[in-house]
Amino acid sequence: MFHKILIANRGEIALRIIRACKELGIKTVAVHSDVDGESLHVKLADESICIGPAPSSASYLNIKAIISAAEVTDAEAIHPGYGFLAENSEFAEICEECGITFIGPTPENMRLMGDKIRARQTVTKAGVPILPGTTEGVATIEQARQVADGIGYPVIIKATAGGGGRGMKVVHSPASLANAFAAARSEAQAGFGNPEVYIEKYCENPRHVEVQILADKHGNVIHLGERDCSIQRRHQKLLEEAPCPVLTEEQRRRMGECAVAAARSVNYSSVGTMEFLLDGKGDFYFMEMNTRVQVEHPVTEMVTGVDIIKEQIRSAAGLPLAYKQSDIHIKGHAIECRINAEHPFKFTPSPGRIEGYHTPGGLGVRVDSAVYDQYKVLPHYDSLVAKLIVHADTREEAIRRMARALDEYIIGGIRTTIQLHKRIMQNKEFKEGAVNTGFMDRLVF
Amino acid sequence: MFHKILIANRGEIALRIIRACKELGIKTVAVHSDVDGESLHVKLADESICIGPAPSSASYLNIKAIISAAEVTDAEAIHPGYGFLAENSEFAEICEECGITFIGPTPENMRLMGDKIRARQTVTKAGVPILPGTTEGVATIEQARQVADGIGYPVIIKATAGGGGRGMKVVHSPASLANAFAAARSEAQAGFGNPEVYIEKYCENPRHVEVQILADKHGNVIHLGERDCSIQRRHQKLLEEAPCPVLTEEQRRRMGECAVAAARSVNYSSVGTMEFLLDGKGDFYFMEMNTRVQVEHPVTEMVTGVDIIKEQIRSAAGLPLAYKQSDIHIKGHAIECRINAEHPFKFTPSPGRIEGYHTPGGLGVRVDSAVYDQYKVLPHYDSLVAKLIVHADTREEAIRRMARALDEYIIGGIRTTIQLHKRIMQNKEFKEGAVNTGFMDRLVF
Repeated sequence: MFHKILIANRGEIALRIIRACKELGIKTVAVHSDVDGESLHVKLADESICIGPAPSSASYLNIKAIISAAEVTDAEAIHPGYGFLAENSEFAEICEECGITFIGPTPENMRLMGDKIRARQTVTKAGVPILPGTTEGVATIEQARQVADGIGYPVIIKATAGGGGRGMKVVHSPASLANAFAAARSEAQAGFGNPEVYIEKYCENPRHVEVQILADKHGNVIHLGERDCSIQRRHQKLLEEAPCPVLTEEQRRRMGECAVAAARSVNYSSVGTMEFLLDGKGDFYFMEMNTRVQVEHPVTEMVTGVDIIKEQIRSAAGLPLAYKQSDIHIKGHAIECRINAEHPFKFTPSPGRIEGYHTPGGLGVRVDSAVYDQYKVLPHYDSLVAKLIVHADTREEAIRRMARALDEYIIGGIRTTIQLHKRIMQNKEFKEGAVNTGFMDRLVF
Repeated sequence: MFHKILIANRGEIALRIIRACKELGIKTVAVHSDVDGESLHVKLADESICIGPAPSSASYLNIKAIISAAEVTDAEAIHPGYGFLAENSEFAEICEECGITFIGPTPENMRLMGDKIRARQTVTKAGVPILPGTTEGVATIEQARQVADGIGYPVIIKATAGGGGRGMKVVHSPASLANAFAAARSEAQAGFGNPEVYIEKYCENPRHVEVQILADKHGNVIHLGERDCSIQRRHQKLLEEAPCPVLTEEQRRRMGECAVAAARSVNYSSVGTMEFLLDGKGDFYFMEMNTRVQVEHPVTEMVTGVDIIKEQIRSAAGLPLAYKQSDIHIKGHAIECRINAEHPFKFTPSPGRIEGYHTPGGLGVRVDSAVYDQYKVLPHYDSLVAKLIVHADTREEAIRRMARALDEYIIGGIRTTIQLHKRIMQNKEFKEGAVNTGFMDRLVF
């Protein structure tokens, strides 16, 4: 096992990793930008190093500074958290070259899954269903028209190198294909330096359901069941739950098997997530793989009892998984609300000093947060200030528990999405478990 | 189910009950003394009523004022929490007479179990082992000598109406029996208004192991496994864990069956705890029953997933238990540290204003506390400011998790026992699970 790990991140995920390391007896090194010295991850790590100025490009994305920090502190491994360098295969390669273990999958796995078309080709070979569409780049409008006619409208055009909604165009009829195709290519070129696009059947208001994977370097791959992350706004998840309230045992089994098969097919050896679309008929389709730990991993931890970060670190150290598939049982229901420093209904950022801070407690309540009273939420970074997670025997009890925990949570001085989540807990559609990715568009404030 | 419950308590247990009520959709009424208006249980209840001045005798023990508060607010039931009126059978009777449900067992059950000799007689008939000794009061020194010779020294003399260590005398040889007998009787008279004593075999440094019982008004009685509460100082528990680290599956099964049999034999119909002594040879003996919820109930909630307060309220409302014995599975290991406002090694009280408050968080960490930043810990009441509870797959992982959670916990302005618990987490004897009730006497600061 490692003796010392550097954490190339900030905020709640840096603290999450520090907590796992402390429990594993591993020393930690925090890195931080010059405006982040008062952050809790800096205060709670064993050592800390300033790696540059506020802009992420100069600090949390500064590969040279991070590698130097690891070398100076004799850290044997680097945990990238999520975001920043977590899916940067070049960074993983540089770590390897410097004799530092990158806590994540191989650079090859990251590159493969980062290329949407290759990912689609790969999982198809492993028998995983994908939405009808191309498994190669579409170069001309003639090709595009042929493909769209073949799979039927509506279709969606996506950038091969893309992500996060950029370069995506939904096309409802042949008349608008040509314009959309041209626009998608030019956005792809501008956004990712590569004009290549591909075309998929467009699924209207599906559920977003994803499967958590654990894999080690000894060929063991298991899944920890699924999460439902349908409540999103502009492709940003706001609330996640486990298990998915509408999945049947048979669907759950098949989705889990697909996720494991896809991971096995590329010799995957870390934690990761297979994202699927679940349509109204109960069919599911592979969307993409995230080759890192996700913001919403705690809901899976609550229903399985597995410490996902510890397993990720153990796996990177070459240890076998502590669990077999047969050890994994989904118990009860968990919900996570992302508490962002934002106007709860307009979603405008609300950075600033926290004045008055009190966290909820009691049975089945977990708070993952790196803020504290008088902490200044910075405008430079993402707006997540806390993840409030609850666990209960049933979904209904979990919703009631979340409602009472939200009532107890006091974050003064800034606006947060606590108000939004209180509304969601009262929402009939949500309470019935009938949500899909169109939920936020239908929500009336 | 009830619509509104009055909570005749304060501090963390009042808040614990409010949380359960909120999740059950029940309105709550807080009562408080005139110095307790700033307490969190007052802030978080739906209504609150001041019932008298600071001394408990004038407020939290003021039956008339509490009953009036319930009548004025139309509360259908009263939850007594622990301490104060929780084991006062007269109070339970008055509630009944006023048409208010007392959330607890029947007055008859309370009286029976409050009388140590009758409790011993009762459980013996149900086949539960008790320490050798008398099952009737011992009136004369001649009787005492006969009994002590019969069971062999050392013996312990206890007050029939006693509790909390008062009126107890350990006798190691015949020479000191007469003096101890006279002293015990006079202390019993002074402390409880009843000189009657009984004699038991004295068990040196046993483990204190207790079984949580759930029972309803339909004859259903189940147990939720045991808690080990051996770490005590002057009969005050400091740290509790579940399960007991040395109990075999066979002992656990037998102890659970004994606890259920004892509860069944008196038609018990609420939550309760059977306390046992476990000696070095692995034999266990009934000590007493607590006819209320206990401070340490959360460790059982963590390993079983059962919300004990909800079950208690459901049972009082006449609903059947939500669980069968076969639904109960002990999962992982839980530890609770009582954080008291006391000098961590001298145990002198340390009331005062909290200046700076930050709670630990993350996976497997639960905080039950009614304090907050700038809250003034009052000298009038008991010194418990928080219960820090952790849950993990194994005892070893739970200890590491508790150590890191204690490191994160900031309570400024007053002294607390956090420092003491940090030492315990490092203690070899504790880490090996080899503790008994003599642990605190052996601990070197």
